[in-house]
Amino acid sequence: MRFGVIGAGRIGRLHARNLAGAIDGASLHVVMDASEDAARAAAYGGARVTTSVTEVMADDQVDAVLIASPTPLHAEQVEAAARAGKAIFCEKPIALDLGATEAAMSVVEQAGVPFQIGFNRRFDPGYAALAREVGAGAIGSVELFRSQSSDPEPPSYDYAVQSGGIYVDSAIHDIDSARFIAGDIKRVSALGRVFANQQLVEMGDVDTSVLTLEFESGAIGVIMNSRRTVHGYDLRVEVHGEKGKLVTEDERATKLWRYGKDGIRGDYYYYFIERFFDAYRIEVQSFVSDVAAGRPPSPGPRDAVESLRVAVAATRSLTTGRPVEVASVT
Amino acid sequence: MRFGVIGAGRIGRLHARNLAGAIDGASLHVVMDASEDAARAAAYGGARVTTSVTEVMADDQVDAVLIASPTPLHAEQVEAAARAGKAIFCEKPIALDLGATEAAMSVVEQAGVPFQIGFNRRFDPGYAALAREVGAGAIGSVELFRSQSSDPEPPSYDYAVQSGGIYVDSAIHDIDSARFIAGDIKRVSALGRVFANQQLVEMGDVDTSVLTLEFESGAIGVIMNSRRTVHGYDLRVEVHGEKGKLVTEDERATKLWRYGKDGIRGDYYYYFIERFFDAYRIEVQSFVSDVAAGRPPSPGPRDAVESLRVAVAATRSLTTGRPVEVASVT
Amino acid sequence: MRFGVIGAGRIGRLHARNLAGAIDGASLHVVMDASEDAARAAAYGGARVTTSVTEVMADDQVDAVLIASPTPLHAEQVEAAARAGKAIFCEKPIALDLGATEAAMSVVEQAGVPFQIGFNRRFDPGYAALAREVGAGAIGSVELFRSQSSDPEPPSYDYAVQSGGIYVDSAIHDIDSARFIAGDIKRVSALGRVFANQQLVEMGDVDTSVLTLEFESGAIGVIMNSRRTVHGYDLRVEVHGEKGKLVTEDERATKLWRYGKDGIRGDYYYYFIERFFDAYRIEVQSFVSDVAAGRPPSPGPRDAVESLRVAVAATRSLTTGRPVEVASVT
Amino acid sequence: MRFGVIGAGRIGRLHARNLAGAIDGASLHVVMDASEDAARAAAYGGARVTTSVTEVMADDQVDAVLIASPTPLHAEQVEAAARAGKAIFCEKPIALDLGATEAAMSVVEQAGVPFQIGFNRRFDPGYAALAREVGAGAIGSVELFRSQSSDPEPPSYDYAVQSGGIYVDSAIHDIDSARFIAGDIKRVSALGRVFANQQLVEMGDVDTSVLTLEFESGAIGVIMNSRRTVHGYDLRVEVHGEKGKLVTEDERATKLWRYGKDGIRGDYYYYFIERFFDAYRIEVQSFVSDVAAGRPPSPGPRDAVESLRVAVAATRSLTTGRPVEVASVT
Repeated sequence: MRFGVIGAGRIGRLHARNLAGAIDGASLHVVMDASEDAARAAAYGGARVTTSVTEVMADDQVDAVLIASPTPLHAEQVEAAARAGKAIFCEKPIALDLGATEAAMSVVEQAGVPFQIGFNRRFDPGYAALAREVGAGAIGSVELFRSQSSDPEPPSYDYAVQSGGIYVDSAIHDIDSARFIAGDIKRVSALGRVFANQQLVEMGDVDTSVLTLEFESGAIGVIMNSRRTVHGYDLRVEVHGEKGKLVTEDERATKLWRYGKDGIRGDYYYYFIERFFDAYRIEVQSFVSDVAAGRPPSPGPRDAVESLRVAVAATRSLTTGRPVEVASVT
Repeated sequence: MRFGVIGAGRIGRLHARNLAGAIDGASLHVVMDASEDAARAAAYGGARVTTSVTEVMADDQVDAVLIASPTPLHAEQVEAAARAGKAIFCEKPIALDLGATEAAMSVVEQAGVPFQIGFNRRFDPGYAALAREVGAGAIGSVELFRSQSSDPEPPSYDYAVQSGGIYVDSAIHDIDSARFIAGDIKRVSALGRVFANQQLVEMGDVDTSVLTLEFESGAIGVIMNSRRTVHGYDLRVEVHGEKGKLVTEDERATKLWRYGKDGIRGDYYYYFIERFFDAYRIEVQSFVSDVAAGRPPSPGPRDAVESLRVAVAATRSLTTGRPVEVASVT
Repeated sequence: MRFGVIGAGRIGRLHARNLAGAIDGASLHVVMDASEDAARAAAYGGARVTTSVTEVMADDQVDAVLIASPTPLHAEQVEAAARAGKAIFCEKPIALDLGATEAAMSVVEQAGVPFQIGFNRRFDPGYAALAREVGAGAIGSVELFRSQSSDPEPPSYDYAVQSGGIYVDSAIHDIDSARFIAGDIKRVSALGRVFANQQLVEMGDVDTSVLTLEFESGAIGVIMNSRRTVHGYDLRVEVHGEKGKLVTEDERATKLWRYGKDGIRGDYYYYFIERFFDAYRIEVQSFVSDVAAGRPPSPGPRDAVESLRVAVAATRSLTTGRPVEVASVT
Repeated sequence: MRFGVIGAGRIGRLHARNLAGAIDGASLHVVMDASEDAARAAAYGGARVTTSVTEVMADDQVDAVLIASPTPLHAEQVEAAARAGKAIFCEKPIALDLGATEAAMSVVEQAGVPFQIGFNRRFDPGYAALAREVGAGAIGSVELFRSQSSDPEPPSYDYAVQSGGIYVDSAIHDIDSARFIAGDIKRVSALGRVFANQQLVEMGDVDTSVLTLEFESGAIGVIMNSRRTVHGYDLRVEVHGEKGKLVTEDERATKLWRYGKDGIRGDYYYYFIERFFDAYRIEVQSFVSDVAAGRPPSPGPRDAVESLRVAVAATRSLTTGRPVEVASVT
């Protein structure tokens, strides 16, 4: 499967490199970026370079596109790729609003092309094993769910103002993990605070949140987020069921422990690129294998829409101070 | 300080034994229980035995009483002890309702006797160190709080029906820890489910809960509880602040790890007596040391009242499905 | 079982306190110390006080003695107690030399009194569980054994010079654990260095050692010791067998983890009194229960002799630079 | 830097894939294997395929060779590559005997080509951080070293008989780590047993070993090996110094913990390919970066020779039952 990579920023470059050599059944055919220099820097293994999306879409040698461009371009590029008959892997989100997302997914489904959205945590070995064991009934039915994600630094004003807010931008990864592990979510209730960046107040955004979840299954849960975590990128998922509990432990950057006068000390990951380095590769491998086998890739269009719907419901709950039925969000 | 122990059940006996030999500055003078056999079984180190509370209160040799009788007797025994001028250590709760608790605390305060309530977690070395470091500013101001407590087995019908419900009976330990670590709580919102014992439904009680907390300080948090945990007694507190995070890790019953075909495996505590074995001793030592030094013991009357007030607010929120202002609960 | 405690130093006082209230079936009858003040400070629960060992031995009310006096007095006090028909719990070692130890044990055996030596690690919940599982065949036959013990500070000159050296004084705990877990030891080979206290050189002693072990069973192993460990008291046992591995993990003083700019950080125990606080109680409880049940307490006379024999063999190997057959040491 | 990969077995294929896309500054030019099918299966990113080593050496487009062929071919291929002026990355060992290894390294040094040997553990993030911190003085001078490596399964007869024995084949990784972390080794003493595969007895080989180390610096240490470990691939390094201790913890395959009736349970790595997946990439990246910068790659010829010399000394000690001076082995 020959890939065109659209967008050669940090994530696009990482995907390009993986496609050039680390993904079985894939090759890197062309890299597109508005900056030719950026495209060239990502053209691993002798891939072609272009500044034109249209050219990629028109290229018969391109079987699949991996979209890692700025978010505002995602929806139209997804639609263009679908119309061009390409298999599509798109970084999250398709769009910040639900309507544009649903519209793009409609085009994908009408075109009948394979589509996967880049919810990378599903492919982290720990998250994946946890979901697999829940699915296999290892803890019986899920009763309590908890996901925590803490980012090392608050978003800048410029980033935050166009990001869609904490739920659409960041907590959507926890939301998607919750759906992946414990199924669809029926109702959410948000509680937020601004501690780290007071500029968020005027946007109606927060940097610290407790979001309670009621799942369709009857299970309940909570997502906790902070966007100022001095020790780095801190994630933890705990799932309690009738027969046991599963926990993906705090990952550490090295397995080195230092013992000294101050006790015992270990390292921590700084941020998501390092923490999910393997997951970025594994998710694309999964996409390639699924498409090659004629299976619909996952997470697919429905996940792109439904995880966003929960994030929008959470945003609405934050604004209104009341629980929001997810199904009421359209 | 010569102690009379009132009530020689499992907890009373443990306290009696500690008082007989493991608490500096204390001795066990007399053990009272309605069953003389029970009293005798707890009369460590040659302590006297009686079936009469009145006799204990009238005994001039008794400087302090440790009340570990059934909950419905606590309030009147606390009042009797206060009137008799004894220093008082009382197992939680004073009473299931706020009025009776406040009334008993008034008697204690009018009598001017030292009083401590048995919120034992405050004296667990991990919880104590966590609170001490928060108090010393190690993580700056608290932003996010989380306490989880999972009991190994759901309460029986007979126990549950007279227990006051999950918040007053069980989550009150998490509530008190939250207050101990992050200060007073302003508003709570409860979400509950019955998974393990359907008999709870008719009582309006639940066995699984997510309780969100808004602290007076502005911090937010959550308490999660389950009353069916197959691996045993499972507690965890995480406190995230502007400068770092503190976690009391899941305790294990032994530090033995077993490596075998199924991976690596460790033991877990079954329940609170084993888990807080040391804390039961340390809390009474703290009481004795405080009284000897003329310091008011802690947690004291205000904690007995205020932690209960939050638990009652949580119960009300569970019933109404809406957030409840703690101050509105009287 | 009424106890006389001989020697009211730090360990004696801890035992006295436990006997006064924390040991089922035991009471503290009398405390003896050459310093009446020291004896009085350990006379918990109203125990009598004396400065005369003879008086303790002659006291018909004393059923058992717990000997925690200075090491040079152990052998003669053990013999006196045996002749007086007392059950005997004696802190390790009986004596620094094998002949005196064997002589004292002969007197004990001729007298037919119960005897236990204070190898406290056998009663640490982790060590005990490990030995129990090895005994139950959980890992099949033992193939590789490893014990590490690191003390926080090197011994002073005055202490070291009369201590018998690193093997007899300190590594004997690892040796006894090795015997407890994997059976008798056939041959040892010692390699040592002086890093922390150069005064040890003239005594022929070391502060850092690697001691290889060949067990009678065919298993092999190693004991590693350091007497300068800045992070505190650091112990670890690993036992590898044909069906798996058992490890007693590094214990930490609190289960608190601190996350901050420098990573994640935990506390460590300072020294053996804190680390084996529970074991000091459990070992005496075991002694009392065994005697009450008419069982010979364990570790008993043979362990006192045989663990010392291995330590003496190790000392000889250090001196000669060659492996030493344990059986050749008499 | 255009690479020719020599040998397309499991490790060669992994390297080929990394070179095709995961290594900055490198590309995969040609893959050689005696089996054209095997070569083709490793020809990632459109690399050429050949069955002729000579052709690779003669190819001017090949800047560097990565030798992952069967061990008996290493020395001659290293020499051929050196004479052809290629930069050389060679899997360990160069040869099983010291003479052939030294001869090949002479050719490399005379040719002046960059050379690196595949001691992959040096590039594991945990091992690398440990060595870096020791080098930076974080724990002062090293006093005690310990490395443990346990393989999941004993070698087959056919493998073992041509492997050079446990020290040359397997423990050499621990030996090289010891040299990497604590410097050169002066004397070794081996103690071995056969537990898992009795066929090893006739070869004079063992499957379980304790090897004591005396470093040139004065530090002492031990390497422990087992070749039958039911839980998988189990490695641990502990380095104790005057100012603290560093430990690379047992790695687990996932960070998932399962809590259930049997306690808490985690996964383990099966073997080195999974455990050192990242290290295989990082070591080649380091080679490429060093060569590009004109730095001699490391570990280089001296490490290839000296780590083998220690392994041969250990083998000799096992045979003779006596300590062996490393310098005496030629």
